[in-house]
Amino acid sequence: MSDWEWLRGGITAVPGVMAAGIHSGIKASGKKDLALIHSTHTATAAGCFTTNRVKGAPVQVSMEHLKAGVGQAIVASSGNANTCTGEQGLKDAREMTKIVSELLRIPPRHVFVASTGVIGQPLPIEKIRGSLPKLVKALSPQGGKNAAEAIMTTDTVPKEAALRVEVAGRPVTIGGLAKGSGMVHPNMATMFCFLATDLAVARPQLQTTLRRAADQTVNRITIDGDRSTSDTLLILANGLAENKSLDRPGADLRVFARALHAIMERFAKLLVADAEGATKVVEIVVKGAANRRDALSAARGVASSLLVKTALNGQDPNWGRLMAALGASGAAIQPDRVGVWFADEPVAVGGQLTAEVRWGKVREVMLRKEFTILIDLGLGNAQDHYWTSDLSEEYVRINTKYTT
Amino acid sequence: MSDWEWLRGGITAVPGVMAAGIHSGIKASGKKDLALIHSTHTATAAGCFTTNRVKGAPVQVSMEHLKAGVGQAIVASSGNANTCTGEQGLKDAREMTKIVSELLRIPPRHVFVASTGVIGQPLPIEKIRGSLPKLVKALSPQGGKNAAEAIMTTDTVPKEAALRVEVAGRPVTIGGLAKGSGMVHPNMATMFCFLATDLAVARPQLQTTLRRAADQTVNRITIDGDRSTSDTLLILANGLAENKSLDRPGADLRVFARALHAIMERFAKLLVADAEGATKVVEIVVKGAANRRDALSAARGVASSLLVKTALNGQDPNWGRLMAALGASGAAIQPDRVGVWFADEPVAVGGQLTAEVRWGKVREVMLRKEFTILIDLGLGNAQDHYWTSDLSEEYVRINTKYTT
Repeated sequence: MSDWEWLRGGITAVPGVMAAGIHSGIKASGKKDLALIHSTHTATAAGCFTTNRVKGAPVQVSMEHLKAGVGQAIVASSGNANTCTGEQGLKDAREMTKIVSELLRIPPRHVFVASTGVIGQPLPIEKIRGSLPKLVKALSPQGGKNAAEAIMTTDTVPKEAALRVEVAGRPVTIGGLAKGSGMVHPNMATMFCFLATDLAVARPQLQTTLRRAADQTVNRITIDGDRSTSDTLLILANGLAENKSLDRPGADLRVFARALHAIMERFAKLLVADAEGATKVVEIVVKGAANRRDALSAARGVASSLLVKTALNGQDPNWGRLMAALGASGAAIQPDRVGVWFADEPVAVGGQLTAEVRWGKVREVMLRKEFTILIDLGLGNAQDHYWTSDLSEEYVRINTKYTT
Repeated sequence: MSDWEWLRGGITAVPGVMAAGIHSGIKASGKKDLALIHSTHTATAAGCFTTNRVKGAPVQVSMEHLKAGVGQAIVASSGNANTCTGEQGLKDAREMTKIVSELLRIPPRHVFVASTGVIGQPLPIEKIRGSLPKLVKALSPQGGKNAAEAIMTTDTVPKEAALRVEVAGRPVTIGGLAKGSGMVHPNMATMFCFLATDLAVARPQLQTTLRRAADQTVNRITIDGDRSTSDTLLILANGLAENKSLDRPGADLRVFARALHAIMERFAKLLVADAEGATKVVEIVVKGAANRRDALSAARGVASSLLVKTALNGQDPNWGRLMAALGASGAAIQPDRVGVWFADEPVAVGGQLTAEVRWGKVREVMLRKEFTILIDLGLGNAQDHYWTSDLSEEYVRINTKYTT
């Protein structure tokens, strides 16, 4: 039973939120490469960033700006990550926030910045500088999709979602946009996810709720195991819903948390579904683990295995590769207790092939666009999950040709 | 300055060592799938096995047999890993050692067993049982290459090497064979490497020397990050060189250790060069690390990154992907201290592109079949290395089609 209703659109479904996306010239293709999100009212801000020790200049600037816990705009560019670009890169990222702040007449600290694309090449700041006035002029309450398009790199579709939920007796909207189709792995790996809501909420509650939702959704997906230098998750909560501000844990915050989880799970699946070269989304569920950490390690280990991912691409119900990945995952396992199901079809019990595997049925499951592989370790009660994609020749083709 | 001279051939270059390889029927293709190595004299034995918690039945049996530290034969099969096969699998592996021991008139405990191939399918033991007498009859002092062929799975070439080195005033031979082209990663990952030497050496010295050489060679390669359930490294030292037995550390043992390292490094590179779909061998050298552990983590992190490996395949000098992999490796790094060279060509200093990268020269380096990427972390004096291959569409093609 969900408390929320899905809406059309994305971040601009949220009252008081405008957005824009234009082409500034970073991408040679002529595609949109510069996005802006603007809340007409000052908003409580929370965020999570890449755990990579090499952090893009925009990540460093946004982390700095987030300290105040207040924000009103996000400027994002695609085509160049502005990472490994030294002092000049930091200057460029700061200049982006400064120009936007002047054009919007808000403090520079209320502007966040994010850039994705090739690492280790100077940012073409003159092109961005010249395009920012046009970007601000393009802001519109229907601009969410343009912004979603302007943050795409190898993504094939823009990613938006919005929902409405009743919190503390008031209708509240959450909307957002996201990008990411390669270099995606645990811990905020090359992904942008920008969210807004009109909820009135205190900073600590917003940050905690966002962090928890991230851990269960966008931090539970893997495409290629590479962790980006630029992952950025941000939420702006502008309070226009005029609910009594949520400033402590309780039932109202839980309702919001469930809805936030739902929209971020939707983004997580959209990211995996659009993984470079992927044809399907597979949820790896591990239950029966001795403890929570083992459940996570096991699920991540299986979801990250190239041999598992290539087998998924080939519709090969190769449960032996799952076992090898489990054994290498670091989780405590006893091979002779492991059971494996593809959707509802049992393949192994007690660490061996079941007597009568219905291979035809298993292959039918594997042809689905989305399905679950359930692994029961038979050791305890802990459970966790991970979403993964299959790995196709197309992934390699994209990454041998595209300089990211 | 090397103390040794390379010889033609492989394991049967060693005095007193015979080998054979035949087709028993495990592989539908009709290719050789059953190998035997036999020392005419009892040998001191040492070995290392997969660290995967899921261990094939043959690994379990060989680990048990190795406890005595003495051996005289290795029987190996390809096409089926006899892993996740329960009690029957253990019975089958034991039966293989028992039949061989009866045919060779040696104790079963002196026979080691190894199987590679698909996981989670019953071993066709009746075919093996029926072929073992023929295999023993085929033993010959020129049989090394047949054995090397009989342990291949997706390998495209058999892998053999042999050398002669003077130890304690006596000429000593070391020879061996190896297989492995996928599921190859640190810690004995799907690889067989069987070695023999006529050196007289005590068990503890042989085991320590083997373990150290393995850590620096076959444990420093990665193809796809997947760790096999069946990796087996074994050495038989039959003492026919009639040197005074090496039973303590010292100059003589160091000479042997260097030669063993050399032959195992050769195998490590042969494995990476024959990696599924690979076109080149790249050594990732990390120096200037704060400590040894960081040097290893950094080298492994870069060598394992899919985005690095696909860039190598596309001749794309994408140093940004190296930086992202470094930052995610767990090693302590300060991005603004990192320098990167492709062979002798500098690409980055102080964590940024060097002023005048000679991209033409860098691309020339990347077209070589073998080259080094040097990364200087600029933090300390520790250094380590890793060999990796590029990742091509061919890798995915092989692994979506081949059930391993």
